[in-house]
Amino acid sequence: MTSSALLTDLYQLTMLAGYLEQGMAERPASFDLYFRTPPYRGSYAIFAGLEPALDYLENLRFTEEDLAYLQTLGLFKTRFLDFLRHFRFRGQVIAPPEGTAVFADTPLLSVQGSLAEAQFVETALLNIINFQTLVATKAARIQQAAGDATVLEFGLRRAQGPDGALSVARAACVGGVLCTSNVLAGKNLGLPLRGTHAHSWVMAFGDELAAFRAYASTFPDQCVLLVDTYDSLQSGVPNAIIVARELREAGHELQGIRLDSGDLAYLSRKAREMFDEAGFPQVRIVASNELDEFVIDSIREEGGRVDIYGVGTKLASCAGEGGGALGGVYKLVECDGQPRLKVTGDPEKSTLPGRKKLYRATGTDGRFLQDVVALAADDHLQPGQRVYAPHNPLQSRRLPEDCRLDELRRPVMEAGRRLHAPEPLDQLARRCHQQLEQLPEGCLRLINPHRYKVSISGDLSDLRSQLIERALKEKP
Amino acid sequence: MTSSALLTDLYQLTMLAGYLEQGMAERPASFDLYFRTPPYRGSYAIFAGLEPALDYLENLRFTEEDLAYLQTLGLFKTRFLDFLRHFRFRGQVIAPPEGTAVFADTPLLSVQGSLAEAQFVETALLNIINFQTLVATKAARIQQAAGDATVLEFGLRRAQGPDGALSVARAACVGGVLCTSNVLAGKNLGLPLRGTHAHSWVMAFGDELAAFRAYASTFPDQCVLLVDTYDSLQSGVPNAIIVARELREAGHELQGIRLDSGDLAYLSRKAREMFDEAGFPQVRIVASNELDEFVIDSIREEGGRVDIYGVGTKLASCAGEGGGALGGVYKLVECDGQPRLKVTGDPEKSTLPGRKKLYRATGTDGRFLQDVVALAADDHLQPGQRVYAPHNPLQSRRLPEDCRLDELRRPVMEAGRRLHAPEPLDQLARRCHQQLEQLPEGCLRLINPHRYKVSISGDLSDLRSQLIERALKEKP
Repeated sequence: MTSSALLTDLYQLTMLAGYLEQGMAERPASFDLYFRTPPYRGSYAIFAGLEPALDYLENLRFTEEDLAYLQTLGLFKTRFLDFLRHFRFRGQVIAPPEGTAVFADTPLLSVQGSLAEAQFVETALLNIINFQTLVATKAARIQQAAGDATVLEFGLRRAQGPDGALSVARAACVGGVLCTSNVLAGKNLGLPLRGTHAHSWVMAFGDELAAFRAYASTFPDQCVLLVDTYDSLQSGVPNAIIVARELREAGHELQGIRLDSGDLAYLSRKAREMFDEAGFPQVRIVASNELDEFVIDSIREEGGRVDIYGVGTKLASCAGEGGGALGGVYKLVECDGQPRLKVTGDPEKSTLPGRKKLYRATGTDGRFLQDVVALAADDHLQPGQRVYAPHNPLQSRRLPEDCRLDELRRPVMEAGRRLHAPEPLDQLARRCHQQLEQLPEGCLRLINPHRYKVSISGDLSDLRSQLIERALKEKP
Repeated sequence: MTSSALLTDLYQLTMLAGYLEQGMAERPASFDLYFRTPPYRGSYAIFAGLEPALDYLENLRFTEEDLAYLQTLGLFKTRFLDFLRHFRFRGQVIAPPEGTAVFADTPLLSVQGSLAEAQFVETALLNIINFQTLVATKAARIQQAAGDATVLEFGLRRAQGPDGALSVARAACVGGVLCTSNVLAGKNLGLPLRGTHAHSWVMAFGDELAAFRAYASTFPDQCVLLVDTYDSLQSGVPNAIIVARELREAGHELQGIRLDSGDLAYLSRKAREMFDEAGFPQVRIVASNELDEFVIDSIREEGGRVDIYGVGTKLASCAGEGGGALGGVYKLVECDGQPRLKVTGDPEKSTLPGRKKLYRATGTDGRFLQDVVALAADDHLQPGQRVYAPHNPLQSRRLPEDCRLDELRRPVMEAGRRLHAPEPLDQLARRCHQQLEQLPEGCLRLINPHRYKVSISGDLSDLRSQLIERALKEKP
């Protein structure tokens, strides 16, 4: 992955130059990274991208070549370029572990450091966390829809460029999709690879049975045949059964077939019957062709007999209503020890001021009840306490007396160095799976899911009200 | 951009191993890359990604590290890994120049070479061409909607990872969006950079006027102020006018303001009035906030006075109906000198067999009339001739007697080496602009555009009919 200090918006550099000139660069500051709406019209997102983000922060530095380029822009003074030469990220980062289910209006990453360093890293952190979280969430939705069936990612040909595809493969793992067709992702991330042949293989032979026999002779123990080049049930499956018999006579077993067009629910049921009747119950059925969580859900709903779903375009492009991009933002919440607030006409777009803790309330049945955002200095949060809606102090509710409150985040970087070794990707996938099992009923529904509750503590609600009042008084 | 031979789907390698084992690897083959539906429910796409694709082809080779990894998969024989060690792309590529308006069912890239090399490059070519073409098309739509106003790309924070963002910046240029906020893209591609400050700048000062003054003192000649942290018309614009006066007294001029929320058509008109009345007609108005071609079109429709549109998320994520991904495919059309065909139940998904030429018919008024796909060996295509619908030989029409026919593509690579130096990006952008001006009326409409005609020659139509007939006869 490209990791250059220049991978940023120009305005981060102009602001940095401004802070330096104003003598403000070293003031302590704290930023929160969060999103306002969960993606895909769902109830949750799966937090991902932390390790690549920490990599970026640890390695952030301007090369002489970078500085020479910035000089050519005619915007910056020599003093500023000297400052950049020694610029490092030496701040603190607080975050939940990757694979955690997270919700709107709760701080994911919180970054503390000098105003200069904590501001500058905004663009890269958003780039990494927004995209990885968006893909991990899509993968989790797809894997949920597929139930116990395996999902295989093969979005490389439709991904946003070569490295976009590598990011997709990693984030898909966090969401539970651990197999890929992308050989480079397999190598770099240690993922299991899957893949057989394309229609062109059959077309190159001209004769489907000859093509199947040739493939089986090359890979007698890993043979999966694509059966829809001409007609799946009339030609593809019968030819695959001939090859399955020939393989068995030679001491091998056909592994599977792939259906890539037509009515996948119907075709998979029919193909299953044909293989079972022919004595090949071990042959697994792979389905592909513009699959997403909704199509997979309907295939299962209609009794489709698919063992493996191959998902490409819709996963790599994070397709679907409310997909495409996660609108994560990065907002200043404290500067020079003073809480900061952005007030706008739209209350939903106002920020939550101050450094924060994030609690998750869990019921006695082990299900998550709600998340509560509190101030870092706020020690009072207890079961039974009254908490408030994030954007309206008139809406409040009590936390149940018997709930458990856990902090969801921990420091992951201090003084610019990461505190923990990266977790293996399959561990992140297991965490994601576990988290989804603990969501309140209805949160996993694909359409109009139950909206998971997020609240803020009384102290945070009061602080915001005071700051808004003060801002209004200062106005003409 | 990552350029590894392993950036491919596993099945390219298994097929390659199969072709080698079957003694078919060196057979001559020809593939066409094309799409079936234009993106964004529009009428056209802007072809982009050729240079990165040629870079990939020229540099394709397996390193010893790649081969060592492939050996660990337990799939491949030593003979195959030795074959890969010397594997290069030495084929021919035919393509239109980047920035050309292209249409469904016409071959964009055609690749000829050995079956092994021409098949293997499928995944990477699709990855590069699909995404670049998708972004270039979105950029062209947005720039068209913006008319003479400048469009600035700042999608980095919402792009598909770091390199996704670099691909976006390049492809956006092909579509006519040449300014970016992405500093690394500016450096690597030589693009003009734009950017000012964020809301956090104002929040760090707490006082908007103080924040504006500080920014103006740092960049007195490049000062653009973000006016919506509190209230654009009540606070932001009046404060910006104070700073504009102070700058002028000191011998400088305020360059502009940026509106980032609210009713941009209304706010831009009001802000324009306020600056004009205060004697600052030179102040340019930048608008941003989830802009795309539709929003920009409606702002202009309602008399908005925006000079510069900043477009981020919707461009970088290729948002919109029919966006997200371009469904480009890569199909075998000839093998061993024999035309090849994929027949499916769905005629729209059948392929066009044989090696091809692509003609564009232009009317006497300089407007494009239609594109015609012909066989490479087909020398007869002339004005006045009868041509056929791509998927139905019963639909035909005559080319006008007075049209001009030009071949749209040329060889760009022979024996694995590119034939021409890369064109500058602004030249590609100019070509795109020129091409859009020559489209038939109605093709640029954002909603339900006129569908540009694509036809196939009589020889090609006949060849396909014969091959389908033959395929049907061979079936049981």
